[in-house]
Parts: sequence; structure tokens; C-alpha cells
Amino acid sequence: MPTLKAKIIDITTGEKGVVLNEQDAKGMMLRIHDRVRLSKGGANVLARIDISDRIVCRIEVSSGLVCPGEVGIYRDLLQDFPVSEGEEVEISPAPTPPSVEYIRKKMRGQTLTKGEITQIVKDTVTHSLSQLEVAAFLMAEEYVGMNMDEIESLTRAMVETGNTIDFGEPVVDKHSIGGVPGNKVTLLIVPIVAAAGLKIPKTSSRAITSPSGTADTMEVLAPVEFSVSELRRLLQKTGGYIAWGGSLNLAPADDLFIRVEHPLSIDPRPQMLASIMAKKLAVGVSTLVLDIPTGRGAKVESFEEARKLANEFIELGSRLGIRVRCGLTYGGQPVGHTVGPALEAKEALETLMGRGPNSLIEKSTALAGTLFEMTGLAPRGGGQDMAKEILRSGKAYQKFREIIENQGGNPNIKPDEIPLGEKRYILAAPTDGYVSIINNSAINAIAKAAGAPLDKGSGVKLYAKMGYAVKKGDPVVEIYAERESKLKEALGVASRNPPFMIEGMLLEEVPGF
Amino acid sequence: MPTLKAKIIDITTGEKGVVLNEQDAKGMMLRIHDRVRLSKGGANVLARIDISDRIVCRIEVSSGLVCPGEVGIYRDLLQDFPVSEGEEVEISPAPTPPSVEYIRKKMRGQTLTKGEITQIVKDTVTHSLSQLEVAAFLMAEEYVGMNMDEIESLTRAMVETGNTIDFGEPVVDKHSIGGVPGNKVTLLIVPIVAAAGLKIPKTSSRAITSPSGTADTMEVLAPVEFSVSELRRLLQKTGGYIAWGGSLNLAPADDLFIRVEHPLSIDPRPQMLASIMAKKLAVGVSTLVLDIPTGRGAKVESFEEARKLANEFIELGSRLGIRVRCGLTYGGQPVGHTVGPALEAKEALETLMGRGPNSLIEKSTALAGTLFEMTGLAPRGGGQDMAKEILRSGKAYQKFREIIENQGGNPNIKPDEIPLGEKRYILAAPTDGYVSIINNSAINAIAKAAGAPLDKGSGVKLYAKMGYAVKKGDPVVEIYAERESKLKEALGVASRNPPFMIEGMLLEEVPGF
Repeated sequence: MPTLKAKIIDITTGEKGVVLNEQDAKGMMLRIHDRVRLSKGGANVLARIDISDRIVCRIEVSSGLVCPGEVGIYRDLLQDFPVSEGEEVEISPAPTPPSVEYIRKKMRGQTLTKGEITQIVKDTVTHSLSQLEVAAFLMAEEYVGMNMDEIESLTRAMVETGNTIDFGEPVVDKHSIGGVPGNKVTLLIVPIVAAAGLKIPKTSSRAITSPSGTADTMEVLAPVEFSVSELRRLLQKTGGYIAWGGSLNLAPADDLFIRVEHPLSIDPRPQMLASIMAKKLAVGVSTLVLDIPTGRGAKVESFEEARKLANEFIELGSRLGIRVRCGLTYGGQPVGHTVGPALEAKEALETLMGRGPNSLIEKSTALAGTLFEMTGLAPRGGGQDMAKEILRSGKAYQKFREIIENQGGNPNIKPDEIPLGEKRYILAAPTDGYVSIINNSAINAIAKAAGAPLDKGSGVKLYAKMGYAVKKGDPVVEIYAERESKLKEALGVASRNPPFMIEGMLLEEVPGF
Repeated sequence: MPTLKAKIIDITTGEKGVVLNEQDAKGMMLRIHDRVRLSKGGANVLARIDISDRIVCRIEVSSGLVCPGEVGIYRDLLQDFPVSEGEEVEISPAPTPPSVEYIRKKMRGQTLTKGEITQIVKDTVTHSLSQLEVAAFLMAEEYVGMNMDEIESLTRAMVETGNTIDFGEPVVDKHSIGGVPGNKVTLLIVPIVAAAGLKIPKTSSRAITSPSGTADTMEVLAPVEFSVSELRRLLQKTGGYIAWGGSLNLAPADDLFIRVEHPLSIDPRPQMLASIMAKKLAVGVSTLVLDIPTGRGAKVESFEEARKLANEFIELGSRLGIRVRCGLTYGGQPVGHTVGPALEAKEALETLMGRGPNSLIEKSTALAGTLFEMTGLAPRGGGQDMAKEILRSGKAYQKFREIIENQGGNPNIKPDEIPLGEKRYILAAPTDGYVSIINNSAINAIAKAAGAPLDKGSGVKLYAKMGYAVKKGDPVVEIYAERESKLKEALGVASRNPPFMIEGMLLEEVPGF
């Protein structure tokens, strides 16, 4: 087993990798991307290799060079295998992990056992699988599918390979499968539900493909990054929080799956079910209401498909000991009138203070009400009224102020004090008529081009939604950006992807004069 | 557009990449693996980014460091975008290439246009697509499939994005879809066909997943790497050659597709058709005989499937102006008695000299004979006899000597002068009986573990094949290796994957005492 001297390479590549000199690689009959095992003392780790092909080594050569007798360690690997510059490390060729064969089995259309699925998830989390292999697994999930036994195994394996939090008491949760812009309902549901005395420890994500994740929106009002012990304290004190789940290591395989799903724009159904439910199981959720936005441009386009998905969530939940009810909501246009972190935080705050759009109130109270019915706080059919009363009475707003303060934000903030992008542009109705389409994907693309979610004040405001009557020249969509260049970019996107359509509006003139 | 100073990083990563300092990346709102465009003077190139996250830069820090204001250039990119250390390079975020959307379209099950497929192939060849995106395309080919219009477009696009060779006269070719070990028939067919006066410019590949590619086997007897002008001279002089096609840049997309197919163990049917036919179209083949090994453990297991594939090759050929006939051959066990570069070269040479196994003679002359019939040199049904006569008369051996000499090898080499691995082990029959199975995949795995194809003398020799009667203790399989450690490895593989089965042989004793 050759012993090589470690050389730290300060580059993050997204995979656990090392660099060998071509000469050493040839000696071990290794090619680029083959796997090796590194060991020193008792520790050892798997890595994939890049090659440094400079044979002649001199002192003054350029950076990145790995000479014969050296092994370059990328930063990604250093976390798992801490080693100092110059330290000796043993290297040996490593066999392909057995989970590669299980992935091939799934690719051939076969059913996997619990043990096989667990091994795939473990090897994903330890980076023993390459991104290409993880992609093959996810694409096989997409095209071959998985039965409910496999999905249950996948969910449990994702929980077992990460942290879990036991709050010591029953907790409830809400979740949306996503895909609809402007879905700031969590900022209303959590205080409504907590105001009724339920415990709702809401961890949410930052935007992956959307202009604002719930964590991005909440962060406008208060910090969202906490340790597990801080979260326990937050829940005990106010009965609810809205935190970022990313650093808690709950079902960490999810992030690694997303890193592959995202560039490929895939969202395999078995993976969606497992990822959502694993994060709930990991924090001991006993009762869950699930929002399934349905409609043109949402993740689920037909009610038939939405009902099928709802039943899958309910069955998976019952196998895991989580009671699930699903709300099929309208996802064919944005929720409320705003898209983007600061714009959405402002709208949520206004709604809690009694000045919000009806669609947002209806959706939030319906989902909160479902949790009241499931936990017996309200009779069947009485949940939404109870939620509306909590909202109307100001108790939800009061609870939200506590939550903001508890998380370290300013509870006295007024909606108008939330800073919005100063660079703005209004897209007006080119003709009289009814708004017939608000295009989700165009709205998303415009808000992202305007800088959301990184530029918190950027986004889109809708003055009219589907079915509204507008007159020529009325504002329909306003773009907000923090920088002129981003506003320009967003306008470019809007001209290529019209965000709305007025019934009777001329789509194109042919010939163009 | 920020201007950064180039810093050469002497690492080959397999993707066109650069390294930015975290600070610069953040300023451009770039994340790991996002795309950027680099430009200087008139030249520009796309690359994907890794991140160097050291903010404080000092002179004595470790290698690989890319400081704010610098851009690290990996060796892979340097080929396309030559730049000197310290040179200024402009960097701007680059949009996702449009072919990513076309790949998604295929993933959704839609049919692609010629323009869309051409763009995908172009972006593959220019490395504008990541390996993950190429993988998504290939898996969509595998699971969604392609119609013949799409396959034709794919073939033509693969030709258009590479070199072509015009020999100025009609040329014929033979090809095997592969998958059967020991298939050294090319070393017989090329001299038989050339001896009859046809022109057969045979480019072949090195082993990808097998113990020996035709180029690896031929290389035992003569060099196989030539430039295009050398190939022209070789063809003119002897009417045939057996060269490695890898460096000729014919349909170069193929190598990039294989780099993804190989680790995933996929071989999508549309891609197989397009890759094979593109390499034929690129060198102007007018007449092609295609060997489709069929049987247990081959790429195609049933005759029904083999016939379907044959018809697809014939239809694709007719669209491309290539006359194709397919030979369905038996692929359920190795061809001849040897597997591994030197062992196979020896067996081929012996067969040309008149001392070869019948199965190898039958297969080679049948395929060569088909070419004689297609070109009118022999009447329908008379091709194989003509080929056998050329072989029997010694004309084929004489032609092979010319080919070896022409390619720079020793034409006088005797079979026994070919060096074979000295470390050997015989697996004997554990009982009397008939050989009922010779397992292709086990034979392949054993030969590779023994060191093939890199160790030319390593491989496997079969003393008995399916249907042979053997007595207890008779040799059945002999393993050849160049190194003791490799022989041990091969024996380990053989004990886990038995390479043969004798009818009536006890498979396992239960309980094991």
C-alpha cells in the first residue's frame, strides 16, 4: 500500500476527492474518477481521484501541482478526514461499493430490499457514491418508480442516516409540496396554530429553484438559524417557530439528492414522498397537514393526480405513525399578491394585522383549521372558523410578535418599515379586459432575474389576478429590484415570458407593422 | 464584467472547469458548478466553477489556493482556452445552454427535432453540458427511447461534430455490437476480406468494460495508433488495417457518452445504433456486415430481440446510404478458446496458419462471406465457401503478414513467440459430465482481475466449452496472469463467480458439512 504525503488543496469541488500524480496513479492502475481508500492511524475514508499530470516537479511550479509521492486533498474531503500538510497517508485502490449494484438493479426495473435501499442512502451520505451514481438512482426512481415498501424503506433510511429531535411531547406540522409562487402561508399558519396551544416546530428550507423559500421570507423579520437546543427552547417558550432546517442534519441525504435533482430538473415522486416524510419523522411529528397546490404551472396539474399523491402521503404516513390530511389548494397562480422575500414578509405581516388579501386568509385558515380538527380542538367542519377567529381577534398577530421576538427579531416592526427594492417598473394592461392567465413560471423567472432570493427586497407584486377586470394602462405587475442591472434583466425575462394575459389581448402582430 | 488573473492549476478533473475565490463568486452571485464564460482577445469558452474559500491570501499558503482577483484554470480547460499564468481573463456568468431544455423535453417523453438533437451533441462535444446533464440525456434515451428520425439525427450530429475521412473509393467494414468474450474474429476477417481485393479500413476500440478490445489484441502484434494520412497509406498499400480509432476524432461525442455510460453500466439502444453507424458514416463505409452475438450473457439474449435490432440497423443504414447485413451469431459463451490480448492474438494467428478451432473459423468466414455476397464477389450462398478457401489457401495469412508489417510489427512472428503470463492456475472439472454452462460475465471478470487488458499476457484459456464431455480432474479453465497478486485476485473472483458448470455438478451442499 503506497504511502503518500498529504498536500492540502484549497478548492471545494462538491465531491470527496483527492489528486494523485499521474505516475503514482499509473503505478496503482488507477484512472481518473476511480475510487481509493485513504488511511492514517485508525481513520480511513473513500475518495475519487483527479490526476495531476506534471511529471517533472520543481519548486517554482504553479499551484495545484501534485508531485509523485504526494496526494492532494480537496477541501471537501478535509472535513471527513482531517490531515495536515505533509502528513503521511496510505492509499489503496478501493472496490466499487455494493450499492452501485443495487442502483443498477433498480435501473433494470427490479424491486429493492430495505437493506439495499439503506445501503444506497448510507453510501450517498458518506459520499461513497459519485454524483453520477446518485443521479442514476434518482432517474431510476423517476422512470422505473418504487412501490410503497421501497418508499417506506427510503424514508426510514433517510431518517436513520441523520439527526433526530425528540421534543418530548406531541407536535404538529404543516408542509407544502411547493411549486406555487408567493406561498407565504406558513408565516400565518404557525402563529394561528401556536396561538391555539398546539406545538408547531416548523423547519423550512431556503429557495432552491424558487424566488423565496419560507426560511428566506421569515429571515426578513428574524434570524432563522438555530441549534437543536435553541429550537427546544423556542418551542417551549412560544409553542412555535419558523427556522431554517438546513444546518440541523435532519435527513441529510435530502440535500445530496437535491444537489443532483436541481441541475437535472427532476423531482421523482418516490423521492418527494420520502424526503418530506423523513424530515417530519426525524422531529417526531404526530399530525401533519399537507398542502398540495394543484393547477396549471404547479407541480401537480390535475386533481386526479393530486388525489393520488394525497393518498400516497396518507398511506406512507400511516406506515410511519404520522396522521396525515392533505389540502388540495389552487396552485394555478401565485398565492396572495407578492413574490420575493421582503414583499412576502410584508404581505404576511399585513394579513396578520388584519389587512390581507382574501385568498391568503382563506388558504391559511383552511390548513390551520385542518390541524384543529385532526387534534380534536375543533369539530369536523369547524376548524377554519376557529382559525379565522384566532386571526381576526389579533391573537395570531400577538403570537407572531412573540415568535419574532423569541427568534431575535424586532416584534414592533411595521409592514412599511420592511425595506423593498427601490428600482421598480410597472407592467400595465395593454388593453381593457379580464386577466385570463397569471403565469407561475414567468413570475418565478422574473422575480429571480430581479435578484430574489439573495436580494431580499427584490420580487414581483401583482395588482390584478386571474378574473380581475382591468382597463388599458392599469398596473398589473410591478417588478422590484435592488439594482438597476437586475431590474433590466428582469424586464428582459418579462418580455420573453409574459407574466400575464388579458383576455382579448393581441399576442403578436403578423406581419409586425 | 470582472477581469481576473489566470492561475494555472495542474489538475485534470474530467470536466472543463475553473476555480473562483469565494469572494468573487459571491460578488457575481455564482454558486459551485454554475457556468461562466471566460474571454480574452477574441477567444471565449464556457466553464463550470469550483470554489476556493480561503479569504485571507498570503504568499506561503498551500497549493490550489485561488485568491480574490484570480481565476484558477484546470488543465482540462487549458486545451480549449490557452492562457498564461497571470494573464487577464474576463469572466461573466453564463446562461444555461438551450440544450439543457431539450434534454428535459426528452426526459418528459417528448420527441426531439433534428436541430435540438444536433445542439445536444454539439454542447456535449464542447463540454458545455456537464457529465450529469449528459447522463440525464442518456438515461432518457434508455427509458423514454427515440424514434428512427431521432436516431438518424443523432447519428448525423455525431458525424458532423467530428472528423471524417474520405478514402476516395468504396470501402467495406465489419462490426460487432460486442458483449461476448474472446471475439477475435476481426483479426481473421480483415485479412480474408482484403485478400479478396476489397478495401476494409478497420478502426476498432480498446477495451472499455471487457478484458480485451480488438485494438488491444492487435497491438500484441503491431502498433495500432496512426494519423489519418498514415491510415490512407496503409489502406492503399494492403487494402486493410486494424487500427485504434480513439485518436482520430471520428464521432468524438461517442467517447464523451461512453464516459458516462460506463460508470452507470447503461448502453441505451438508440445510442448504440447511432454510435456504431456514426463511426461508419464518418469513414464513408458503403457496405457493412454487423455481428450481433446473441445468447445468455450476451448484450442481446433472445433471437427475437436480435432480429428487431438487426432491422433497426438495416433501416438506419438505408437512411444513411450504408448497405447493412446482420449476422446473428451465438454469443452465449466465448468465441474460440481464449480471452485476453496476447492469448487472443495467438489464437487468431494460429487460426490464420491453419490450426484454429472450428467455431472461430465458421464465424469469421461466415461474416467475411457476407461481405463477398453483398459486393457481388460471390453469389448468394457462396460467400462463406469463398472465405474458407482464402483462409485454407494461406492467402489470408499472407495478407495478415503484410498488414502486420505495414503497421510496423514483425510479420514473421510465430504463435509460440507471443509472451503469455507466467503465473497460471488450472480450474479442473470437479466431476465427470458434460459442460453445461460457460459463464461469459464470470470469464470476463476473471480475465480482468488477472490484469487484462493492461497486462497483455493475462487472460483465460478454455480447454472445454459447452457440450464437451470432461472427466473429473480434466482442465477446463486456465487463468494466466503476469503477477502473482493478480492471479490471486482472479482466483478470488473465480471462487465467487464459477466460470463453468458441469452437468450434475453439486452447486452447494446444505447443510455445509
